Amino acid sequence: MGDNDSLSEFLASAVDAACKAGEIIRKGFYQTKNVQHKGLVDLVTETDQACEDLIFTHLKQLYSTHKFIGEETTAAGGNAELTDEPTWIVDPLDGTTNFVHGFPFVCVSIGLTIGKVPTVGVVYNPIINELFTGIRGKGAFLNGNPIKVSSQTELMSALLVTEVRSLRMTGSCALNLCGIACGRLDVCFELGFGGPWDVAGGAVIVREAGGVIFDPSGADFDITSQRVAASNPFLKDALVDVLHQIV
Amino acid sequence: MGDNDSLSEFLASAVDAACKAGEIIRKGFYQTKNVQHKGLVDLVTETDQACEDLIFTHLKQLYSTHKFIGEETTAAGGNAELTDEPTWIVDPLDGTTNFVHGFPFVCVSIGLTIGKVPTVGVVYNPIINELFTGIRGKGAFLNGNPIKVSSQTELMSALLVTEVRSLRMTGSCALNLCGIACGRLDVCFELGFGGPWDVAGGAVIVREAGGVIFDPSGADFDITSQRVAASNPFLKDALVDVLHQIV
Repeated sequence: MGDNDSLSEFLASAVDAACKAGEIIRKGFYQTKNVQHKGLVDLVTETDQACEDLIFTHLKQLYSTHKFIGEETTAAGGNAELTDEPTWIVDPLDGTTNFVHGFPFVCVSIGLTIGKVPTVGVVYNPIINELFTGIRGKGAFLNGNPIKVSSQTELMSALLVTEVRSLRMTGSCALNLCGIACGRLDVCFELGFGGPWDVAGGAVIVREAGGVIFDPSGADFDITSQRVAASNPFLKDALVDVLHQIV
Repeated sequence: MGDNDSLSEFLASAVDAACKAGEIIRKGFYQTKNVQHKGLVDLVTETDQACEDLIFTHLKQLYSTHKFIGEETTAAGGNAELTDEPTWIVDPLDGTTNFVHGFPFVCVSIGLTIGKVPTVGVVYNPIINELFTGIRGKGAFLNGNPIKVSSQTELMSALLVTEVRSLRMTGSCALNLCGIACGRLDVCFELGFGGPWDVAGGAVIVREAGGVIFDPSGADFDITSQRVAASNPFLKDALVDVLHQIV
C-alpha cells in the first residue's frame, strides 16, 4: 500500500471516476437555465447524489478494503471519521451555487488519504475542461502538464482568493456585465474602473438580454462616469437601496 | 447610419477584430508563466498595444469616418471625448491582472455608440472561448445562442459580483486550491467551508506544486478542521500575520 505503482493506479482510477462524474455535471450545468426553482433544487440534489454514487461504486469495486467519506453520504448520516486507513474523500460537486447559476467554476474533488496524509488528489472542472492531479512526492499537473505555484514574494502584490457567500469577484468588468446578461450573476456594481472601454461593449449586451444598466445611485447610466451597476429588472431597486446604505 | 443592415455589418466587423485580437491574447496568456517580471510588464504592454492597433486598423479601414476611443490610445494622451458621432470604444485586454496571473477571465471588449447610446457590443473571452454579442433592439447572444438575464427576484438569494483590487472569489474551494497550485492565485484562505471533501484533493495538488497548505492561524493543516490557507512558500508568514490582525 502506498508504493509508487499503486499510487499511480489509484490516481488513474480517480481520474476515470472524476471524468465520468464530470459528464453528469456538464449535462446538468447546461440544463439549469431551463428548469423551474423546485426542479432546480432536485436537479442539484440528483446530480450531486448521482456523481457521488458513481464515484463510490467505481472506487469500491476496485478497492473494497478502503474507507470512503463523501459529502452526500455524510449529510445523510454516514460516518465521516478519518482514520489511518486509506480513505477516499469525495466532493462530487464543489461549487453548487455556481452550478445553479451556470457560473463556470464547478468541479469534482477526489482525495485519498493514507495515514491521514493527503496522498492522491484529483480536481476536475468539466465546464472549462481542466483536470488537476497530484501524487504525494510525484508532482502536480494541469491536463498533464507540470504546474508550480507563483513566485510572488510581496503580499501587497499578491492575488488573494477567499469566499463570502453569494459574492463573486472575477477581475473583469466587461465579463461581469456579460455574466449578468446570461443570468450567471444577478447583480453587479463597480465604482472607479478604468474608463468607458470597460462598459461600452457590455452595456448593449446587458440591455439586449433584458437587463438594466444604471448608475449605482439609481440615476441613469453614464458611459463616461466610471460608475456602473447592472441587474435583471427585478433587483434594481433593492440593489440601489442597499448601495445607498453602504457606499 | 444605424439601420439594421449596417448594424449587423458593424457587429460582424467587430467580431472579426475581437477574434483576431483574441488570438494574440491567447498566445500571451500561455506565455506569462515563462517570463520574468520585467519581461512580463513588457508582454502585457505589448499584447495590449498590439490588440488595440489590430482592432483600430481593422475598423478604421472599414469605417474611416467613425471616431475611436481606446484605453491604450487614451493612456497615451489621445482624445477620449465622447460625441454623438458613431464611436468605437475599445478595451483591447480587460482583466490585465488576470492575464498576468493566468486566471482565465480576460477579454476583448468592443462597443459602438451612436448618439452616445451603446448600440453594438462584443465581449470575447479567448481563453474559455465565449463570445458575447448584442445589437440594440436585436437581442444578446453567447456563442450565437440567445441569452437572457436571471429571473431572481430576491436580493438575499442573488449572486452579487463586484471588484476589489487583487481579490478574487470563485465560489469553489477546491478550484481555489488548484489556482494556488498553478500559480494563478498567490494566497488563499477560507473558514467554515463544508468539510474535508472540499480540501482533500486540492491539498496534495498544492503541495506537489511546491505550495504550502496550513491552518489560517499558522498551525499545521488539519483536514478535518474546516479551516484552510494555502500559498506559495514565500507568502505564508505574511498571510498569517495579516490574518492574525483581521480574523
